[in-house]
Amino acid sequence: MAHPPAVTPGDAGAGAPAPATDARRRHDPAVRGFASDNYAGAHPEILAALALANGGHQPAYGADDYTAHLQDVFRAHFGPRAEVHPVFNGTGANVVALQALTDRRGAVITTDSAHIHTDECGAPERVGGLKLLPVPTPDGKLTPELVDREAFGFDDEHRATPQVVSLTQSTELGTRYTPEEIRALADHAHERGMTVHVDGARIANAAASLGLPLAAFTTDAGVDVLSFGGTKNGMLFGEAVVVLTPGAVTAMPHLRKLSMQLAAKMRFVSAQFEALLAGDLWLRGAAHANAMARRLADGVSAVKGVEIRYPVQANAVFAALPHEVSERLLKCYRFYYWDEAAGLVRWMCSFDTTEADVDGFVAALREEMAR
Amino acid sequence: MAHPPAVTPGDAGAGAPAPATDARRRHDPAVRGFASDNYAGAHPEILAALALANGGHQPAYGADDYTAHLQDVFRAHFGPRAEVHPVFNGTGANVVALQALTDRRGAVITTDSAHIHTDECGAPERVGGLKLLPVPTPDGKLTPELVDREAFGFDDEHRATPQVVSLTQSTELGTRYTPEEIRALADHAHERGMTVHVDGARIANAAASLGLPLAAFTTDAGVDVLSFGGTKNGMLFGEAVVVLTPGAVTAMPHLRKLSMQLAAKMRFVSAQFEALLAGDLWLRGAAHANAMARRLADGVSAVKGVEIRYPVQANAVFAALPHEVSERLLKCYRFYYWDEAAGLVRWMCSFDTTEADVDGFVAALREEMAR
Amino acid sequence: MAHPPAVTPGDAGAGAPAPATDARRRHDPAVRGFASDNYAGAHPEILAALALANGGHQPAYGADDYTAHLQDVFRAHFGPRAEVHPVFNGTGANVVALQALTDRRGAVITTDSAHIHTDECGAPERVGGLKLLPVPTPDGKLTPELVDREAFGFDDEHRATPQVVSLTQSTELGTRYTPEEIRALADHAHERGMTVHVDGARIANAAASLGLPLAAFTTDAGVDVLSFGGTKNGMLFGEAVVVLTPGAVTAMPHLRKLSMQLAAKMRFVSAQFEALLAGDLWLRGAAHANAMARRLADGVSAVKGVEIRYPVQANAVFAALPHEVSERLLKCYRFYYWDEAAGLVRWMCSFDTTEADVDGFVAALREEMAR
Amino acid sequence: MAHPPAVTPGDAGAGAPAPATDARRRHDPAVRGFASDNYAGAHPEILAALALANGGHQPAYGADDYTAHLQDVFRAHFGPRAEVHPVFNGTGANVVALQALTDRRGAVITTDSAHIHTDECGAPERVGGLKLLPVPTPDGKLTPELVDREAFGFDDEHRATPQVVSLTQSTELGTRYTPEEIRALADHAHERGMTVHVDGARIANAAASLGLPLAAFTTDAGVDVLSFGGTKNGMLFGEAVVVLTPGAVTAMPHLRKLSMQLAAKMRFVSAQFEALLAGDLWLRGAAHANAMARRLADGVSAVKGVEIRYPVQANAVFAALPHEVSERLLKCYRFYYWDEAAGLVRWMCSFDTTEADVDGFVAALREEMAR
Repeated sequence: MAHPPAVTPGDAGAGAPAPATDARRRHDPAVRGFASDNYAGAHPEILAALALANGGHQPAYGADDYTAHLQDVFRAHFGPRAEVHPVFNGTGANVVALQALTDRRGAVITTDSAHIHTDECGAPERVGGLKLLPVPTPDGKLTPELVDREAFGFDDEHRATPQVVSLTQSTELGTRYTPEEIRALADHAHERGMTVHVDGARIANAAASLGLPLAAFTTDAGVDVLSFGGTKNGMLFGEAVVVLTPGAVTAMPHLRKLSMQLAAKMRFVSAQFEALLAGDLWLRGAAHANAMARRLADGVSAVKGVEIRYPVQANAVFAALPHEVSERLLKCYRFYYWDEAAGLVRWMCSFDTTEADVDGFVAALREEMAR
Repeated sequence: MAHPPAVTPGDAGAGAPAPATDARRRHDPAVRGFASDNYAGAHPEILAALALANGGHQPAYGADDYTAHLQDVFRAHFGPRAEVHPVFNGTGANVVALQALTDRRGAVITTDSAHIHTDECGAPERVGGLKLLPVPTPDGKLTPELVDREAFGFDDEHRATPQVVSLTQSTELGTRYTPEEIRALADHAHERGMTVHVDGARIANAAASLGLPLAAFTTDAGVDVLSFGGTKNGMLFGEAVVVLTPGAVTAMPHLRKLSMQLAAKMRFVSAQFEALLAGDLWLRGAAHANAMARRLADGVSAVKGVEIRYPVQANAVFAALPHEVSERLLKCYRFYYWDEAAGLVRWMCSFDTTEADVDGFVAALREEMAR
Repeated sequence: MAHPPAVTPGDAGAGAPAPATDARRRHDPAVRGFASDNYAGAHPEILAALALANGGHQPAYGADDYTAHLQDVFRAHFGPRAEVHPVFNGTGANVVALQALTDRRGAVITTDSAHIHTDECGAPERVGGLKLLPVPTPDGKLTPELVDREAFGFDDEHRATPQVVSLTQSTELGTRYTPEEIRALADHAHERGMTVHVDGARIANAAASLGLPLAAFTTDAGVDVLSFGGTKNGMLFGEAVVVLTPGAVTAMPHLRKLSMQLAAKMRFVSAQFEALLAGDLWLRGAAHANAMARRLADGVSAVKGVEIRYPVQANAVFAALPHEVSERLLKCYRFYYWDEAAGLVRWMCSFDTTEADVDGFVAALREEMAR
Repeated sequence: MAHPPAVTPGDAGAGAPAPATDARRRHDPAVRGFASDNYAGAHPEILAALALANGGHQPAYGADDYTAHLQDVFRAHFGPRAEVHPVFNGTGANVVALQALTDRRGAVITTDSAHIHTDECGAPERVGGLKLLPVPTPDGKLTPELVDREAFGFDDEHRATPQVVSLTQSTELGTRYTPEEIRALADHAHERGMTVHVDGARIANAAASLGLPLAAFTTDAGVDVLSFGGTKNGMLFGEAVVVLTPGAVTAMPHLRKLSMQLAAKMRFVSAQFEALLAGDLWLRGAAHANAMARRLADGVSAVKGVEIRYPVQANAVFAALPHEVSERLLKCYRFYYWDEAAGLVRWMCSFDTTEADVDGFVAALREEMAR
């Protein structure tokens, strides 16, 4: 038997992409909408990082040089005690983090709009055996008073033990916490023997909105573990569990593995994160998305009959408008109903939203409202 | 506040990679070893596919055009009833597949060398609540007789109900099943009301070894659900659950989500799979890896004192050699002990292993054995 | 070695209790309180049934003659399609029932005061992987409108699928549903593809309160599965999952076993249930407990400064009174704070509460309030 | 509405059983077999203890006086550090104990004939998320060498971490460990950072067989946690988790509750245990059962063509005999096939087996073998 030639002798090392076969492009890259920051693609700098990390052999499952270096990258943002554990996706980051912060009796106090409660198909319960204690909020934000609605019974064997307070920054409603608000929650939680988890799928948007470094409202505000979002901010895939209080967690490597969140070729996650975080790519993308949301909110606020529902503090705009107007707009633009019965819609901006996208949408909205 | 400029206006649509910053290359792409096919990087054609799928907005979570088309790509290989569900990794594929094939009382008959039993940190049990019934085997392969050691008590409430037979193709020991062997297992399982799952993390290597199309030993041999491997065959990440008997599974989309295996930007998984499977990239890479393993086995067999342990039918070579020789070789080459006490080592070849890599290793082994 | 004599040759068959060793009585059987119906002991008729079922050998795990006959006993109450599965305790009944009504993606809509949410230490989540969707209520009772707050997203893989509506009869707040209210909920649930579970830990109290046979507000009102309570109504231990819609459940025997709720010597659970249900013992005990609660509510209502909080429709009385009065009363009487900060206490009556118990307590309360 | 009379005013306190209604006796108490010690009923002294503990109110969920005293009862047997946690059944005791000894990554090394592996419908996996590592044994007993087959990879995140060695005393095959054998296993386990659990569903039979106090082969031999069996030794129901090394476990009360093993009226479990253990009832019953098994083994050994398979060291006899002989015997006597294909049957003796029962069975067997 003649040996077939190696697919990529030599070339693999260089990581040079082969020429693109345009016949396999199946979408129009000029089309963007307001459905989700997950609808956007990847930063070109992210793609470039993949090529750079390609070629040759690197130890699998996180023992590679890119992941080793990534510790420094994250520590530059989160302080010298931070430990980063790359994972695949946001649900994975949350559920690994929450398992690491709890034992088998643990419960998690969170909001009733939290992603872990509403959008993870029960993964916290099913994968982690976690009990969630969701609290209604007016704006997606917990307060010490709201936490206290469920923060009791710490020694009561009949009740799942509240062990973690989980908040989202920026929130699912497009709002964000100040460092002082997070510090108050963290102090409150710690005084009661609980730890603090932040779902930071859009934490870069919060940082851009606050105009503060990442540590200012995480490490320095008492947060113990953070789910750090990459996907919504221009990565192809990849999130990270960032442990800010190492003593607060146990068995992280095993939990990541048994939660099916351990990437074999982890260099390709870590290289993306380095591209995002070593410079200011993470901030540029998020600040731009926020600015586009601000522009959008300003634009639609001027249209009579459209009501902005929550403070626009990140990259999301929630608005109430007539249902038939939404229906007509949906023929040209992708976005989601947040509460269809209430006429509430959500518009998300992303790193690649353009001013023209926004202005065009506002014009279309104005026109439809005028019909 | 002045709006920061969009990161990639226009450019993002084209998906053109930015120039690589060589300072961020942290490894030597000329270095390869025999530790694992997971140590290899990605095919350049795979990277190119990512660039092509980039830019613009595409619906998240699998509603994109690439994933829609992927159904056709897989059906060309597995027949018109096949349904593909891309996931992140192999453990994820296995645990999603096995959940879809069982209910809450289900048990899975498998080998005691199966990845699901030995290398997934209990994910099947912890994520899926699955009971495994592992059977010892001489060569990593189940037979109807071996299955029967655990295939009983189907109505006994005291016993977890055997509902699935799970086999690995090619096996963890570098062997592979013939279509006839799989058909016999499938008939045996089906007669007893069980279904058949194949862990195909290296199924391309089996196809190359058998010289048969993929359907010949899956769809056509009675397999119900397949974990199809992409990562070990040149993708950056990504595996797929391929349902061959649609009626055998329930709630696949939900199971993928709650198992934390639903990629937000799924277009980037699907585009990789298309690059792999639309042409013969999948086969070229696997056939080459197999050939390199054959060359390696032939080379070391000629060295006195080295014993090949299992038939070399895919891309792995298992050999027994003196422990001190292994220790010396490990100073220059990465590979793993399979059973250190027994002096058993595993050498894996991958799509980018070169003849020079193999010949150099054989020479080094011969030299060390001669010392 | 001489064989020791059999412990009970002959006698065992007769099941005659040996004389009681009074030295081992460790409590004063004349003391009763208002803490819980679980604080009461067992009906003498229940104890007698144990003696009757004792002696000789009977197949274990439910294959005995008592459990076989129990089907008829329950069918006399719940109709010819009912199937009874005795279990150990209430949490066990609920979690087995809810697993039988769901698949791995399932969620359960319930109240935020439901025992499954507040008092089972997360057993539904941890044992069954169930997602709970708790809804706030004014009085512990669901309505179709309240159900609709969570009854959506049936096809959305991001959301745990609402598959069951679980209500409690009588409720944790001492209220009860009418048959019409349950029928409305059941119709509402069924129209949306959901089933209806009733936590009937105190269902006998509801029946006594309504003056209706058990089927009138369960089988005939559209309930699919019922957790039937025995412990709180005079059994030593033992509850039952009663399947009213056989097609709504799967794998009941296995679910009971894997949920660790399968009694080896089940004859001793079934014999208790027969003693309870074959005659009117179940109703006598519950009606008496309700009457004592009514007497208690009437008595304390006449005391200025004590406010009854919820309608007294079963065997519980919730009242608001000054904290220091509660503290003084607790020195002589056992009862629980329901919400200590709000000054809310719960007083439960049981089958063995006497009029003198109630009158004495009311007098003590009056006296303390007057201080 | 007239108040119905209290069911048992006054009488309830005395706990006097009401007269038995013989119409409800559904079985012949003179019939015994050799199917299982679970087929036997309860010791009359056990029933008497229930009556004694009845009446009045006692705090629920283990805060009663009987459970408080039970600590002393168990400490008299197991030493001053022992802590007892009554539960409902053996599977419950095992799964609570194993959860208390592990964290989320834990695995349990046990035999492939262990009850936790073969007879609990996957409860350890499903309820506790536990990974079992079953080892084949010749006689149901682990040895340090057998443990070593799975005792590796303690730091490997890919492998479930071996944290517990679980053995059964007396074993499922009717054999038993000596104190020295258990000590060797415990030392071996502890040296590797693992703890030792004993499934003692029939531990009384082992004690009787060894002629040793319970502590001699548990506390004093290095066992950390014990599942103590009551049901098979004459209780109606009830087992106990006995913690011998308090520092080895965490969250026991919560684990018992969330595993649905917390009895509301726990006084009725604890009173049974006191009746069993305060005197020598536990030992009399077990010694008698063992003696009957010895008598049975001696009797059938004398029958040509019947082969005793395992050493008869407790209350079980395993024998190989012609299948048709078993079939004919099963028309008159209840017992189980252990391996029907191999002609292997199991005969169990219990506390109430009589010499006449044994002699009659041996005679019947001899007669059938002679046909």
